[in-house]
Amino acid sequence: MTLNVSLTRIKEDILELSKIGRNEEDRGIYRMAFTDADMEGKRWLIDRIKQASLEHTVDGAANVSAHLRGDPSLPKLLLGSHIDTVPCAGALDGALGVVVGLECLRCLKDAGVLPRHGIELIAFSDEEGRFGGMFGSQAVCGQITPEKIDTMHDLDGIRLHDELLRHGYDPLHALDAARSPESIAGYLELHIEQGPVLDRLRKPIGIVDQITGLFTWSVWFRGEANHAGTTPMQMRHDAFLGLAEFAHEIARILEENGTEQSRATIGKAQIMPGAPNTVPGLVEFSLDVRDPSDQVLTELADAFRKALSAIARRRNLMFEFKQQSYIAPVTCGTALVAELKRQAEASGLDYITMPSGAAHDAQILGRMVPAAMLFVPSKGGFSHSPAEWTAWSDIEIAGNLLLRTLQHLSASPDFANLVPPLTA
Amino acid sequence: MTLNVSLTRIKEDILELSKIGRNEEDRGIYRMAFTDADMEGKRWLIDRIKQASLEHTVDGAANVSAHLRGDPSLPKLLLGSHIDTVPCAGALDGALGVVVGLECLRCLKDAGVLPRHGIELIAFSDEEGRFGGMFGSQAVCGQITPEKIDTMHDLDGIRLHDELLRHGYDPLHALDAARSPESIAGYLELHIEQGPVLDRLRKPIGIVDQITGLFTWSVWFRGEANHAGTTPMQMRHDAFLGLAEFAHEIARILEENGTEQSRATIGKAQIMPGAPNTVPGLVEFSLDVRDPSDQVLTELADAFRKALSAIARRRNLMFEFKQQSYIAPVTCGTALVAELKRQAEASGLDYITMPSGAAHDAQILGRMVPAAMLFVPSKGGFSHSPAEWTAWSDIEIAGNLLLRTLQHLSASPDFANLVPPLTA
Repeated sequence: MTLNVSLTRIKEDILELSKIGRNEEDRGIYRMAFTDADMEGKRWLIDRIKQASLEHTVDGAANVSAHLRGDPSLPKLLLGSHIDTVPCAGALDGALGVVVGLECLRCLKDAGVLPRHGIELIAFSDEEGRFGGMFGSQAVCGQITPEKIDTMHDLDGIRLHDELLRHGYDPLHALDAARSPESIAGYLELHIEQGPVLDRLRKPIGIVDQITGLFTWSVWFRGEANHAGTTPMQMRHDAFLGLAEFAHEIARILEENGTEQSRATIGKAQIMPGAPNTVPGLVEFSLDVRDPSDQVLTELADAFRKALSAIARRRNLMFEFKQQSYIAPVTCGTALVAELKRQAEASGLDYITMPSGAAHDAQILGRMVPAAMLFVPSKGGFSHSPAEWTAWSDIEIAGNLLLRTLQHLSASPDFANLVPPLTA
Repeated sequence: MTLNVSLTRIKEDILELSKIGRNEEDRGIYRMAFTDADMEGKRWLIDRIKQASLEHTVDGAANVSAHLRGDPSLPKLLLGSHIDTVPCAGALDGALGVVVGLECLRCLKDAGVLPRHGIELIAFSDEEGRFGGMFGSQAVCGQITPEKIDTMHDLDGIRLHDELLRHGYDPLHALDAARSPESIAGYLELHIEQGPVLDRLRKPIGIVDQITGLFTWSVWFRGEANHAGTTPMQMRHDAFLGLAEFAHEIARILEENGTEQSRATIGKAQIMPGAPNTVPGLVEFSLDVRDPSDQVLTELADAFRKALSAIARRRNLMFEFKQQSYIAPVTCGTALVAELKRQAEASGLDYITMPSGAAHDAQILGRMVPAAMLFVPSKGGFSHSPAEWTAWSDIEIAGNLLLRTLQHLSASPDFANLVPPLTA
């Protein structure tokens, strides 16, 4: 029996949800985690789950789930994304995966499908990072501690602890959201690409086989601030020229030590004292480096450190760096990826296999259980902006691919064998 | 008769003047133009002139002068600098030239010298730029207009017009400060170098033969802000990498088109949106370029424009620039420079000839009448900071050199021939 999602229902849900937290002036959506708008979004989702006659639950991390029950002795198939947003967001981002996931469950339910492996759709809390990001998926994976709950706060100093209380949650109950790896057979997530690749290549679907890892550094070059008129070029210790030389070497370093999937970005730099007639005495800048291979990341870190150190020596600058964050790459579950490919080929889809360059809840889940993702094209590569969009036809294609994959996997008697446990 | 300055009196005056406007917390001097501290400095100077039994005048631009009268039918020799400061200044900067100049007049007066050419020491108003800079010297050179008086304001929006009124000046009387070129035989200024050259070379004296010209640009590169994880390197239009490439080319451009005296500085840059995980979509930065030759400046401007434009094309960036200021270079009066050298050699001084890389009142005067400058070493190259210092022994050497040069020039019957008028 070939099932199809209803694009009409998906459109309705996307458009309805996009009204929650929308600012009519800039047309952006402001549904940041644990704001009133975010909680209204969660209530809207629960209503939609009830209307579909599906069972719903809410865990201690305020993750909202819809359930299609299967054999309780078998591990479940998880399907997830998030409905919280960055400030001034577009209508899709995480909402798309939740809405399409709900449509898949509705289709299976309406068709009377009784899966062997239960299917659970989760809308995770604070993926976008008001309180640091990936809160809901970390809670499900048992990575939240009482200390984290106590210290997490947003940019205005508002504590997550207080926001949870305000919305009627006992903050420490977030720890109870943890699941055992044995209870989950695999995790699937549909998301917009948030990049230009599918749109430029005119491909409707990307099957994600790797989620990139990343490290970010803060780097300082300290030279000497001097008068731009009275200090001869050869007597300067210009901190900014150290940064410029380093930025100039990024392409070489990636070519020598990276892969086609490597990215390195200087997105932020502060030059001090910052007067047009003063040679810069100090620069502080960020370096964001990504690759789907941990070994490549290590080699890139080495190469960047060597380049910084050589530039500092050559230019008589002091140099310091501090790792601000590290996220390990995740290799997607090979059997899940293979099944997505098989379904895509069965439907004659012109897909590509690609890594995810952005972090997602799948990156958290993927360290505990097999995980895979589907990407749909982002028009012009835009995301985190009201300009974010994906053609409805591409959303329909992705919805049907997800539905058929779910249908097949959840029915499979050998799913536990199909998706072998991760070797850590 | 060999006269000598009194280092004791110079020290006393420097130390006394440095107490006016000093902040005891950061030890910096805050005598910004037309503040109460600056006006107190002017009153202190008038008192010191009176104590030396010298005549004083104050013109409509609040320039304070001390006079040693000569033959009123002959042009005068002007000696000048300023006592206003930048915020958090050191004790020397312009104050040194005023204090040492006053000491020279005192010595000549005390020795009963009756110069043919009158000598006038001027402390010019607002050299440092609270209201744009060089206000007093521009007024003397007839470059102030009613419109300028009306529109000049400081960073807090306070108008020069209102500050002049507050201190009892009729703002439009600043126009009456203008002198005719025929009334001035030449202009001399003693100043700290504000750079590291004399200190590094261990020379006590620099005789300035050229004052550098400069242009400053604001430059914009506009690319596309994108997600640092999802945007492949080859699909980026990274505005910051355009800036880095340009900064990297500065050394080559100076080598190819400049001189040993050329300087180019990127002192300020703003990167937008400025998030570590976002490819920069826009950079705005300053370019400050200096050389003592107008032709070299023109060639450098051409070369920088070509480099910016080529980088923009190569990197698919939009590029704009705007000239924010232009100051023409000034060649010092050759006869004045020759006389300073002759006196230095007669005293057995180990001097060098050098350009001034910073702008001074001499740059304004030097366009109207022959001008020259003397530099003393700045310890470590520091200036515009409480760390600014010059050895007392070097100050004494410069004071005596200035005194003997004044004595000789002012007595010279053929001074008008010695210092021929500028050919414009």
